[in-house]
Amino acid sequence: MSIHQPVTVDISADGVMTGASRIYEKRLGDLKGVYRDSEDFAAQVRERGADELVYVVHEQKYDSSPGALIVGTSALLPGQVGSEFAVTRGHLHAVADRAELYHCLSGHGIMLLDTVEGDSVAIELTPGKAVNVPGHWVHRSVNVGNEPFVTLFSYAADAGQDYSLIERAGGMRTLIVKDGDSWSQVPNPDHCGYTATTL
Amino acid sequence: MSIHQPVTVDISADGVMTGASRIYEKRLGDLKGVYRDSEDFAAQVRERGADELVYVVHEQKYDSSPGALIVGTSALLPGQVGSEFAVTRGHLHAVADRAELYHCLSGHGIMLLDTVEGDSVAIELTPGKAVNVPGHWVHRSVNVGNEPFVTLFSYAADAGQDYSLIERAGGMRTLIVKDGDSWSQVPNPDHCGYTATTL
Repeated sequence: MSIHQPVTVDISADGVMTGASRIYEKRLGDLKGVYRDSEDFAAQVRERGADELVYVVHEQKYDSSPGALIVGTSALLPGQVGSEFAVTRGHLHAVADRAELYHCLSGHGIMLLDTVEGDSVAIELTPGKAVNVPGHWVHRSVNVGNEPFVTLFSYAADAGQDYSLIERAGGMRTLIVKDGDSWSQVPNPDHCGYTATTL
Repeated sequence: MSIHQPVTVDISADGVMTGASRIYEKRLGDLKGVYRDSEDFAAQVRERGADELVYVVHEQKYDSSPGALIVGTSALLPGQVGSEFAVTRGHLHAVADRAELYHCLSGHGIMLLDTVEGDSVAIELTPGKAVNVPGHWVHRSVNVGNEPFVTLFSYAADAGQDYSLIERAGGMRTLIVKDGDSWSQVPNPDHCGYTATTL
């Protein structure tokens, strides 16, 4: 049995986490195929560049043994592609029963959730609100505000991520789109059902 | 396989969590035997009453199946018994490898940590700082400030708690005591070693 030293991190409301063991960034060019409006996407890549930052994840992982937790932050910049608000790629945990906490630190966003079986839920998050996402829910963050949408997350270090599930399904079951000064959740015409490998 | 609906909670910096499935309070009378200075403890029970609030825990637990997470807050009021600052009872997880995240929302405190084998660490927490407590660490919160010490916590729902381990050991290995205007960590003369049942 190996015992790890406790790890401290310092988390600011903008998502910067000192003490992170890994920082990764997703840029516009990484999100090809994620949004329905491929023409607007291509235009934005031309205008803003493929290197334009879309989101940053700080995480602190000391171990991947059973029982260990990963702690981190996700900061998703505001934006739209066509009518869709900016999103993260989204995932189902590779060990599908693993839950994940998301606690909003700043901004205004949506946690968009699907089950493989057919449920869809959109949960609005503002600072202080949190959602405890149970296992077996595909989930993605959406920024419906004008500033970065920042969440603190925590999940089991052995959970892993299946990122290809959403792609294989033609996207999540619903889209979060601009609706006047607000947002609404509409069906995604391209969604063709999930084909999960891990249930 | 049963799939739970995502559960939302609203967490304020004072530790109040709307959407909690359970709230429990520890009062002065519940903490008999926890502090070394039994005379001062008895005097405070006489003066303040056994019903005086010491800490409040809000938690949201939707399930105890593998993979599920418990999310909650702990708000520990300021105080001292003898030279010792106010503490929670502390615990080792019954499933000892289970980690726990503590993210400070307000106040000024210490996460006091021991391994059964002999390590002791005191980690100072102020708003924004967090500690990812790995498995196999006995841990307790200590309030070294003048206002409630509030943390958000998250841990696996199957972890459980062994609260009696610290009592059997004569207390944790060290004490957090007042030292001028600050605090210091000193050996606990009553500590006689841990006799863990779950490693």
